[in-house]
Amino acid sequence: MPKRIAAFGEVMMRLQVPGHDLLSQGNTLHYTFSGTGVNVVSALARFGHAGSLISRLPANPLGDAARAYLRKLGVSTSSILEGGNYIGMYFLENGFGARPSRVTYSNRLDSSFNTAPEDVYDYDNITRGIDAIHFCGITLAMNDSVRQHMKALARAVKQQGGLVIFDCNYRPSLWGESGYAKAKPHYEEMLRLADIVMMNEQDVMNTLGMSTQQEQREEQLKELIPLVAAQYQIPVIAGTHRSIHGDNSHSLRGFLYKNQRFAFSDMLTFSVYDRIGAGDAFASGIIHGELAGFLPEKTVAFAAAAGMLAHTVSGDTPMSTEEEILRAMTRSAGDVER
Amino acid sequence: MPKRIAAFGEVMMRLQVPGHDLLSQGNTLHYTFSGTGVNVVSALARFGHAGSLISRLPANPLGDAARAYLRKLGVSTSSILEGGNYIGMYFLENGFGARPSRVTYSNRLDSSFNTAPEDVYDYDNITRGIDAIHFCGITLAMNDSVRQHMKALARAVKQQGGLVIFDCNYRPSLWGESGYAKAKPHYEEMLRLADIVMMNEQDVMNTLGMSTQQEQREEQLKELIPLVAAQYQIPVIAGTHRSIHGDNSHSLRGFLYKNQRFAFSDMLTFSVYDRIGAGDAFASGIIHGELAGFLPEKTVAFAAAAGMLAHTVSGDTPMSTEEEILRAMTRSAGDVER
Amino acid sequence: MPKRIAAFGEVMMRLQVPGHDLLSQGNTLHYTFSGTGVNVVSALARFGHAGSLISRLPANPLGDAARAYLRKLGVSTSSILEGGNYIGMYFLENGFGARPSRVTYSNRLDSSFNTAPEDVYDYDNITRGIDAIHFCGITLAMNDSVRQHMKALARAVKQQGGLVIFDCNYRPSLWGESGYAKAKPHYEEMLRLADIVMMNEQDVMNTLGMSTQQEQREEQLKELIPLVAAQYQIPVIAGTHRSIHGDNSHSLRGFLYKNQRFAFSDMLTFSVYDRIGAGDAFASGIIHGELAGFLPEKTVAFAAAAGMLAHTVSGDTPMSTEEEILRAMTRSAGDVER
Amino acid sequence: MPKRIAAFGEVMMRLQVPGHDLLSQGNTLHYTFSGTGVNVVSALARFGHAGSLISRLPANPLGDAARAYLRKLGVSTSSILEGGNYIGMYFLENGFGARPSRVTYSNRLDSSFNTAPEDVYDYDNITRGIDAIHFCGITLAMNDSVRQHMKALARAVKQQGGLVIFDCNYRPSLWGESGYAKAKPHYEEMLRLADIVMMNEQDVMNTLGMSTQQEQREEQLKELIPLVAAQYQIPVIAGTHRSIHGDNSHSLRGFLYKNQRFAFSDMLTFSVYDRIGAGDAFASGIIHGELAGFLPEKTVAFAAAAGMLAHTVSGDTPMSTEEEILRAMTRSAGDVER
Amino acid sequence: MPKRIAAFGEVMMRLQVPGHDLLSQGNTLHYTFSGTGVNVVSALARFGHAGSLISRLPANPLGDAARAYLRKLGVSTSSILEGGNYIGMYFLENGFGARPSRVTYSNRLDSSFNTAPEDVYDYDNITRGIDAIHFCGITLAMNDSVRQHMKALARAVKQQGGLVIFDCNYRPSLWGESGYAKAKPHYEEMLRLADIVMMNEQDVMNTLGMSTQQEQREEQLKELIPLVAAQYQIPVIAGTHRSIHGDNSHSLRGFLYKNQRFAFSDMLTFSVYDRIGAGDAFASGIIHGELAGFLPEKTVAFAAAAGMLAHTVSGDTPMSTEEEILRAMTRSAGDVER
Amino acid sequence: MPKRIAAFGEVMMRLQVPGHDLLSQGNTLHYTFSGTGVNVVSALARFGHAGSLISRLPANPLGDAARAYLRKLGVSTSSILEGGNYIGMYFLENGFGARPSRVTYSNRLDSSFNTAPEDVYDYDNITRGIDAIHFCGITLAMNDSVRQHMKALARAVKQQGGLVIFDCNYRPSLWGESGYAKAKPHYEEMLRLADIVMMNEQDVMNTLGMSTQQEQREEQLKELIPLVAAQYQIPVIAGTHRSIHGDNSHSLRGFLYKNQRFAFSDMLTFSVYDRIGAGDAFASGIIHGELAGFLPEKTVAFAAAAGMLAHTVSGDTPMSTEEEILRAMTRSAGDVER
Repeated sequence: MPKRIAAFGEVMMRLQVPGHDLLSQGNTLHYTFSGTGVNVVSALARFGHAGSLISRLPANPLGDAARAYLRKLGVSTSSILEGGNYIGMYFLENGFGARPSRVTYSNRLDSSFNTAPEDVYDYDNITRGIDAIHFCGITLAMNDSVRQHMKALARAVKQQGGLVIFDCNYRPSLWGESGYAKAKPHYEEMLRLADIVMMNEQDVMNTLGMSTQQEQREEQLKELIPLVAAQYQIPVIAGTHRSIHGDNSHSLRGFLYKNQRFAFSDMLTFSVYDRIGAGDAFASGIIHGELAGFLPEKTVAFAAAAGMLAHTVSGDTPMSTEEEILRAMTRSAGDVER
Repeated sequence: MPKRIAAFGEVMMRLQVPGHDLLSQGNTLHYTFSGTGVNVVSALARFGHAGSLISRLPANPLGDAARAYLRKLGVSTSSILEGGNYIGMYFLENGFGARPSRVTYSNRLDSSFNTAPEDVYDYDNITRGIDAIHFCGITLAMNDSVRQHMKALARAVKQQGGLVIFDCNYRPSLWGESGYAKAKPHYEEMLRLADIVMMNEQDVMNTLGMSTQQEQREEQLKELIPLVAAQYQIPVIAGTHRSIHGDNSHSLRGFLYKNQRFAFSDMLTFSVYDRIGAGDAFASGIIHGELAGFLPEKTVAFAAAAGMLAHTVSGDTPMSTEEEILRAMTRSAGDVER
Repeated sequence: MPKRIAAFGEVMMRLQVPGHDLLSQGNTLHYTFSGTGVNVVSALARFGHAGSLISRLPANPLGDAARAYLRKLGVSTSSILEGGNYIGMYFLENGFGARPSRVTYSNRLDSSFNTAPEDVYDYDNITRGIDAIHFCGITLAMNDSVRQHMKALARAVKQQGGLVIFDCNYRPSLWGESGYAKAKPHYEEMLRLADIVMMNEQDVMNTLGMSTQQEQREEQLKELIPLVAAQYQIPVIAGTHRSIHGDNSHSLRGFLYKNQRFAFSDMLTFSVYDRIGAGDAFASGIIHGELAGFLPEKTVAFAAAAGMLAHTVSGDTPMSTEEEILRAMTRSAGDVER
Repeated sequence: MPKRIAAFGEVMMRLQVPGHDLLSQGNTLHYTFSGTGVNVVSALARFGHAGSLISRLPANPLGDAARAYLRKLGVSTSSILEGGNYIGMYFLENGFGARPSRVTYSNRLDSSFNTAPEDVYDYDNITRGIDAIHFCGITLAMNDSVRQHMKALARAVKQQGGLVIFDCNYRPSLWGESGYAKAKPHYEEMLRLADIVMMNEQDVMNTLGMSTQQEQREEQLKELIPLVAAQYQIPVIAGTHRSIHGDNSHSLRGFLYKNQRFAFSDMLTFSVYDRIGAGDAFASGIIHGELAGFLPEKTVAFAAAAGMLAHTVSGDTPMSTEEEILRAMTRSAGDVER
Repeated sequence: MPKRIAAFGEVMMRLQVPGHDLLSQGNTLHYTFSGTGVNVVSALARFGHAGSLISRLPANPLGDAARAYLRKLGVSTSSILEGGNYIGMYFLENGFGARPSRVTYSNRLDSSFNTAPEDVYDYDNITRGIDAIHFCGITLAMNDSVRQHMKALARAVKQQGGLVIFDCNYRPSLWGESGYAKAKPHYEEMLRLADIVMMNEQDVMNTLGMSTQQEQREEQLKELIPLVAAQYQIPVIAGTHRSIHGDNSHSLRGFLYKNQRFAFSDMLTFSVYDRIGAGDAFASGIIHGELAGFLPEKTVAFAAAAGMLAHTVSGDTPMSTEEEILRAMTRSAGDVER
Repeated sequence: MPKRIAAFGEVMMRLQVPGHDLLSQGNTLHYTFSGTGVNVVSALARFGHAGSLISRLPANPLGDAARAYLRKLGVSTSSILEGGNYIGMYFLENGFGARPSRVTYSNRLDSSFNTAPEDVYDYDNITRGIDAIHFCGITLAMNDSVRQHMKALARAVKQQGGLVIFDCNYRPSLWGESGYAKAKPHYEEMLRLADIVMMNEQDVMNTLGMSTQQEQREEQLKELIPLVAAQYQIPVIAGTHRSIHGDNSHSLRGFLYKNQRFAFSDMLTFSVYDRIGAGDAFASGIIHGELAGFLPEKTVAFAAAAGMLAHTVSGDTPMSTEEEILRAMTRSAGDVER
């Protein structure tokens, strides 16, 4: 049965130099609109759920374009407020092989989303009837006011019986110097509210300051995740291990920890077309598996396949249907589909 | 010595989303015109033969564009009639790695070609002086009227001493339910008329209902093809085995059965840029080898290399000259040619 | 107060050669999705109403792209059924000055919309709560089955107190030979159901067979429209007179007949960027004026300005907000807006 | 009845900066292949004649692309020799309004056409069965070797009863200093061979050194053209007067002098999309009118309309059919054609 | 003799939707870099002077692209400091006819230029050897820190004998509420420092609060400009009157007030391709005329023609050479230049 | 400390068919301007040096565009003379996998650079203050006049204490028949003047006629390079060994011979996006290492990484900074850089 799922997060304008040119070589940009919340909710809409975004956009042509784009992705914009002056932007220069991609941000802190005044969202109304709500660690890094909205929304959803999903997504650069100390209490607060958490052992070490004697990533994972689940009473924790190869291909393996048990997907290796947003595809697969009552093994395999397919599509936002992901789980590369 | 070669077949408009976008992501399409007959005849024109298409196109801007495009490919349009209202179309969304390409057809049965009335082609005039004529199983699947034209043209060419070439190209979806029973008699009729047949062991099993105890494709091939050649008195049967890898590369091996002997090409493995139409390049290589009197080993190697190169060029239609194919047969990947 | 407005109509894929090239010159197409109903409902959504389309689209990548595009336009797709195989298409080659634009249709009668079976729309459910519904004469020309859906939907809306809007839009080529005789009874049935009708004196003569001794268009209009309004009991009739100049500019004058009185807009003369769909912009302006309770003079001026602005935007679908149209009504061509 | 028409002339590669950018602003070029002979013969092919070009192109990818493009235009390439190393090119920057377009040539004198050796064309064979042959003053300006081919071909066609068409097209810059003295004998030789000449009073003054007391262009024309016709025994002389307005529009009036009588077209004023090659469209209209036996008044009106329409199409080469031109002669700017 | 000319101003990234699409319709942007100072200095570089910009850009890919673009325009970047985080941006949607163009700004106040710390420019070093420096009222509107840099640079140039040029360019929206009171003292300070001022009667009324009884713009101009010149001891004041027509054309007339005398250009009417930055072209024409010692009548005619031509070129930045402008002054619209 | 580095060489216009189309398939070209000297000097400018080109370009829109492009690349154009009529061009069709790229040249010998008269460069002035000058074997192959300029410039730089850098770059096709005999004395003269030479064992055999008994490339290198260094008294010789794989990847290993010692880089294997110009990136890395006083091992590793990165960027010209190259030397393929 389809669920009503919301996400709270910023809409970013992505401005990408076509092909593999640098900004100083090209003269055109391809633009789309995305954001962790946008990506997750859009992917879930593609799986048949009703997805909406709680956010704020300016009442100008850029805001109009963002709203139109979100509707196109299948995301309801009825909880997106109008106000503020700017939209966050990032410029993307695609790398190639040995040359990494580069992302350059515009002034994101002045965006309509990040300057939303305290009383602007009507938490109770906006969360009414929502089955699950998604938050992400990038939003948590923005400023006190955004953090306040985030926690209030989490509490409102929880209070009326909905699930809280939290993707740790720790980016040190966003927290500035001594970011760890600044970040930890906020992460702890969100973890305590959360029912499903996206996190791996590195997030644990970075955001909660835990450490381990283990040296292998998998061993670290198996030691730390159960500790976190226990300490913050988190029913489900999921995440990935990724390795990057020199030939434009990546390997990805997903895990899901639930009921004191780990489930792992196969290690998938695949050619990468557009890396950004693939983590959100994995998260959406986990959420869908949980909402649909898949067994953990199926959920994590579904999520890993969703993540893999998201690397083959342009843009930040996953575009695969449940059927396409299920097909990708069971067979190897295929010929043209006619 | 150059030959006069005709093909009977539909001209399709190919509408491709650029890059690797889905139709729901993009807003532009790249269009070309192709078709099995177009591809084979155009490839043979590039080898120095005089190629023409027997077909039917509407007298409207789409038909004009198709005719202009065919002329550009070196295909004579003097045997293309004007009439009917529509041109068949297909939309192509390029896959990437783990995500397969998708083809969506428009209503092809109402095309000018597939609605050609019974008396519209003057079989004798249109085939006068033709050294060889090419047909394909896709055309055979269309409707009774098209099948009737096809067989009448084959007989007309045969009568005046030309070769009949038939590419089995069995697509189950085109024949509908219990397609096999519907298809078999037509396939048998064409096989009996044919001098050169493109077919592998799967086509044999699908269209003629033969079976084998062998489990390896190569063993199946070696058992079934000689049976077919004997039963239908086919001088030359050729075809390929293809395997598809996860990293946008394919492997291809060609065979040629003639005078009770198999000749095989090397197994070629190569990166794929545009997969559609590569089978027609292989067929054109076989036809050219036969017309030019190559030894079977050279013919099948030439055809396989032609097939390989066709995967490296955009569009359905092969673009390589004889010289380029011969060069590709003898050397490995080269540096820029200046 | 925003209204809930539906339209019943086909979604067409528009495939346009960029710039002013012919299909036989270019190799790319720009695609969008439109239709009279799409255009009107999207324009009304831009004015703040809730707009939805009642239609049918195939469950394939083309149908997906159409639905995504409609959502982007602000049109609810929840009343668009899945089924059938094809989407109607038209190819557009832009003219320039002395060279007219050309439209070439694909096989529209086999579209999912035009092949919708009799029992496929649940008329009562689908029209529940709708304040107004829009139909157009192009749809009326399709086939009996579509006409049956159209009239049943009109009756269902009327029964529950909603308005019926009918745009005559008579295209002789769609009705075939002796089209008038075929069309008249259907037009009469729709006129009797309608509350707002888009029609000018030529439509009256073409569809109802009325005639007049007057020779000037304006005199013909003033004679015929009141007769039609009286005979079919139509509260509001509106339409335009257009003249086309050699320098890529048009002149347009709108009229509105209501309560036995004509209101006329100024004659507007303006440069034309994209002519298609501008009539739908005028209709949406009339509908909005009526729904919003504007005086007739304001309504027709608003509609004419909406029509004018629609000529300045690419694509069939109007993109102007109420504010932009009101501004265009009151001032001359302006400098860059910063 | 369709005629066989050849032209002798160079194929140029046209490299155009898209839109209205300068070469120092843009980074892409749109390329096509044209030339006076190409344009005239292609236009005549569109009127139903069989057109071919006598020329020479390099055996390299540029030559291949040129041949493919010419075939697309409907021009037979069977009389185009392979040889030499280069293709002539010109770069086009579109002007706008007050800013004129700019053409920059590459080294045209080293092109395959302009370096064709003396014995390379088999004049008799190549002109066998040709009803008319077209030459142009630009070719005449190239070098002695090209002029020798030109005159030999003219004589060969004349000898076997075909018509010789000569377009004066005098460009002073091509003849260098004291160009007039250099050009005159060659022009005289061509005029004596010609049956149809494209020329106006300025060409007369520039190439033949005639003068007049008249000050109005029309008076000059009426005085000089009959003198030239008499002196060189030219059955038909035709040409245009053009005036250029500030708003991207031009006015054009054609004349035809035959049997001691002038016929004039209306003065046509129209918006200009692509000015280059429009003179060739006028010439092709005159030629077609003469070949088809139109009355002089119809011929010149047809040619003027052909010229007008050629200004509305991108590229040097006219794209209109006889039907489209006839329609443009009889009616004013029209609405979209569906 | 070429001069060394600097400008102090912000570099803006211009992101333009191609053609006439809205941001919510398109998906690509064309980007360039401009700014009043950039435009003026680049235009003067094209006239043969050595132009440089004094500014500040971030040390990131956007800053790199801006610097590369400025070098391409012929502007020396050796006085552009590295620092800060952002570049100012604006999005441009081209209008058409009755629909005005729209400009949407990003957060310009946080740009590297507008956040330059107090001691960051070494005024004396940076202005050494400069013959003239250009400032603009937009920069003056930014903040106190920028204003301080502006005035210090003006004084530094003046002290070493260079000219100070000030373009009033008053935009009310940039000064906020009661902007006039805020702006006036700064404008007065700049006017007292300036040798050449770009200003018309509206700037006088807006920035200095002067008023007049005259109702005609020309009369107002003739009354107010001499008063300002006298009061602030300004040797040269120049500016334009512009009127905007409905058919994508504008009219422009320039004036120059010097030695108590007005010189006026003809009223020029022309089609507009890209309106933005045309005022800077006029300014550059005035500056060049003054530096080159043209008579006032020639200077203002040259400047008006420079302004006109700048409307015919894409982008904010004038692209015409002195020779092209002189040619445009003396003749009407011309044919293709070969 | 940044150095002043010049190069003497031709500016070529590169016209590339986008994607992987052939010239006969496409209709657009992407153009840039490059050349060995341009590439080397631009790369060095990116490393912080002051780079300029000594060359000659026509005074027309193509020359203007070339100069603008070079400025964009950071190359000073103050030593580029105006004169002559043409710019050298080459057309590039990108290969794919098994299909090699193709380069087609226009008539390069008539370019402004290759037709520069004897007395056109003021050798002493133009080389004043230059720390190093770069030449290449392609230039040496052009004609006597260019060779004379080359040697005179080399001597002028040497005389005033600057370094002479010579890249052997032997292309047999440029020297024509018995090219070796023609080339040898010129190569010897340049080697005697040179301080840094780019050359590998094949260049030694091709240009100097030396031979070796060794069969392995590395052994040949180790035998021949020391001989050349001794015979011509060359302080530094560097070069690469490249192998090309079938999957669009190459392997590259650099060497540097100095003070009777070889230093080798690791063998780097990487995906190739644009192969042309990568040798110039290696050369620029060697030059920078030498100018900056790196140890030989660091220099050759830096140069190899610079070469590798140049294969990942579109266009002939390297775009990497010193920092980016140093990063690529120390780590494997990375994730997106934010």
